[in-house]
Amino acid sequence: MKTKNLASSQSITAAAGFRAAGVTCGIKPSGQPDLAVIVADRPCWAAGVFTQSTTPSPSVLVCKEHLRPGRGICQGIVINSGISNAATGDQGRCDAVRMCEVLGAEVVKHCEGYSDPDDPLEAKHLLCASTGLIGHPLPMEKIERGISKAMSKLARGPEADAAAARAIMTTDLRPKQALVRANIGGGRVTLGGIAKGSGMIAPNMATMLAFITTDADVRPRPLRKALQRAVRETFNRTSVDQHTSPSDTVLVLSYPAGKQPQIMDEQSEGFAAFQDVLTKICGDLSYQIVADGEGATRVMRVQVRGAATEKDADKAGRAVVNSPLVKAAVHGGDPNWGRISTAVGYSEAKVSDAKLSVAIGSGKGKPVRVYEAGTPCKLTKAMEAKLAVAMSGAEVTIVVELGMGEAEAEWLGCDLSKEYVTINADYTT
Amino acid sequence: MKTKNLASSQSITAAAGFRAAGVTCGIKPSGQPDLAVIVADRPCWAAGVFTQSTTPSPSVLVCKEHLRPGRGICQGIVINSGISNAATGDQGRCDAVRMCEVLGAEVVKHCEGYSDPDDPLEAKHLLCASTGLIGHPLPMEKIERGISKAMSKLARGPEADAAAARAIMTTDLRPKQALVRANIGGGRVTLGGIAKGSGMIAPNMATMLAFITTDADVRPRPLRKALQRAVRETFNRTSVDQHTSPSDTVLVLSYPAGKQPQIMDEQSEGFAAFQDVLTKICGDLSYQIVADGEGATRVMRVQVRGAATEKDADKAGRAVVNSPLVKAAVHGGDPNWGRISTAVGYSEAKVSDAKLSVAIGSGKGKPVRVYEAGTPCKLTKAMEAKLAVAMSGAEVTIVVELGMGEAEAEWLGCDLSKEYVTINADYTT
Repeated sequence: MKTKNLASSQSITAAAGFRAAGVTCGIKPSGQPDLAVIVADRPCWAAGVFTQSTTPSPSVLVCKEHLRPGRGICQGIVINSGISNAATGDQGRCDAVRMCEVLGAEVVKHCEGYSDPDDPLEAKHLLCASTGLIGHPLPMEKIERGISKAMSKLARGPEADAAAARAIMTTDLRPKQALVRANIGGGRVTLGGIAKGSGMIAPNMATMLAFITTDADVRPRPLRKALQRAVRETFNRTSVDQHTSPSDTVLVLSYPAGKQPQIMDEQSEGFAAFQDVLTKICGDLSYQIVADGEGATRVMRVQVRGAATEKDADKAGRAVVNSPLVKAAVHGGDPNWGRISTAVGYSEAKVSDAKLSVAIGSGKGKPVRVYEAGTPCKLTKAMEAKLAVAMSGAEVTIVVELGMGEAEAEWLGCDLSKEYVTINADYTT
Repeated sequence: MKTKNLASSQSITAAAGFRAAGVTCGIKPSGQPDLAVIVADRPCWAAGVFTQSTTPSPSVLVCKEHLRPGRGICQGIVINSGISNAATGDQGRCDAVRMCEVLGAEVVKHCEGYSDPDDPLEAKHLLCASTGLIGHPLPMEKIERGISKAMSKLARGPEADAAAARAIMTTDLRPKQALVRANIGGGRVTLGGIAKGSGMIAPNMATMLAFITTDADVRPRPLRKALQRAVRETFNRTSVDQHTSPSDTVLVLSYPAGKQPQIMDEQSEGFAAFQDVLTKICGDLSYQIVADGEGATRVMRVQVRGAATEKDADKAGRAVVNSPLVKAAVHGGDPNWGRISTAVGYSEAKVSDAKLSVAIGSGKGKPVRVYEAGTPCKLTKAMEAKLAVAMSGAEVTIVVELGMGEAEAEWLGCDLSKEYVTINADYTT
């Protein structure tokens, strides 16, 4: 299995059957691209995972309805950036449905297999997402014109991929693309993805979005199961500032290339392998999001091992990755075992001080154990030097061993810098 | 009921029967005071509430044992600052017990009613706490000499109060003292308290400590019940950086002045009134802790109303007060309703966007409603001016109305400044 990230030359249209475009429709005052479409040549399988916020955005509610069990057939996604469809009430709901309808009418014009341009594809077979400033109504005229414009530019290849990845950015500094190829059950599958997110961003900008396409032949139910698990182990274990957005959305489209075994359910041959590659690409995109976190200078990877249950491992990882004291220490290059062990202590995970140990490394080679059995470890000069190197790199790995069982979890986060405060405090309306 | 805070002239020895002292015993390299004692003239009732960390410090474990149900009789507390007794293993436990033993021997010398100086007061009738750098053994020789020195200076009055309050500080910028007097069941009661805490402080310094004395006549069981509730509604709804320390301790001593009705249990006359004043003084000390939070320039008071349950109110308040985005907005003077409403949205409290409203004020007068029924409110120029004033003061009040029931909770926090990052990142060993 080979993963290309960051410098990925292909992403969302790498799998056969998908085209994309990114255009400027005039939402962002900066004139930067702000509308993307991702379209399959034919209707394909789809699944989504959404924000756990109890006040989800209207776009999320509409997508959930379009993907509810028994549905899960989709031919396209439209995403706008600049203004999010959150805190917009009933109007927001109408606008989200309208975005799907307009895309449906365009799909009939631009995709084969539709004979009557006056008989648009039903809205329920399309999906939408919005990200940006919340509390403002979507500028629907601009968006409708933008959808037509983007659909006229639908293409495959690195340029289309990059354009789509750019058009969904808000305050992201870098576009996020990923590509994974693997053999599953004798056939070669491709997964491509794009994502955006950099914090729950000023001024009131929100949202982590990710879109993945694949030529693996996976039915909606196993696709949803695989996505739920992949998201639980990747995006849901990622935190820039623990502030969940009401618009968080991950969508995956499966357009069978016909050469792979059909994955009809979770018992199908190939399901486990597909689960692995889907988790891989979600992990790749998650990493790009924390690396581009607001004010971030360093990625923090927290590996919790030996937990009594996966829930415990999750709690411990979440506490460490979200602790402002740990984040500030990582920023300052301080291998502060006390902040890590005390964060685990208040995490509500089942812990015994006598069994808890903490090690810190650069992600390469064996990490240095700094805390064990309730007390700090005595460090040699060589270990201190190794720690100093680990704490000054682009990624710090913190290994927390609970000694209570076999469960594990890995969380990704980033450091807390003054730049984060500047970005989020010094904004004025 | 009258509360004096900040400029309180009397605190921990205001109630009859208590004496205190604060001295320098040589733990802090700075030469600042680092050991305090609080002693009652006779054994009195005691109760404590401790850290919820699953890796509590040895001092906390020893106090818990000395205060376990059926005990609760205490004559003195010794507190050292500079080095915390955390991450110290078995040695830490021996040291905590030893602190109590040494204080017990001194109590026999300095308090009336003890005839034999070779028959010290049992360790179980004394309590201890330590705060400061973690992972280092306590310098017991210095501490033992310090206890003798402090006991020779035992006194009542503002000077002794201030000395004790100063001696428990670590990186606190200001000592924290409070005094409440009230009539309970026809008798006048006094409660005095001191506290310390400013974050879970660099380098690895920890701990929120508070000590309260009273002449109200309250037996250990109702005293514990009242303290548990008071702490739940005050200290436990206070957050500088959501990082619970393994040493957090709140102790209350009741030395009956004989003029109040005896509070034997929770049904006793006067229990409810005592509960109120105890909550009041805990609230006062909590406020002083967040106002002196690391890097804090502004207190944030979050009042959650209309929750379905108190647990829901708690979750919503905790999410808002801990959100780095809300904290940064409060720092920047930005009345950012979006960050507040979305924090409530991810809090796991039962919420309906249609019923949620947010108002922001200065704590004086009616706050300005900024968000209602899922959308931002239209603000007049006058309202915007009022908001600007509210956001620039020493305290910002955020009122979150959930509209789901009757339950309430108030949380106290502070803003997130670049100074916080400086304090916690720029430390080098």
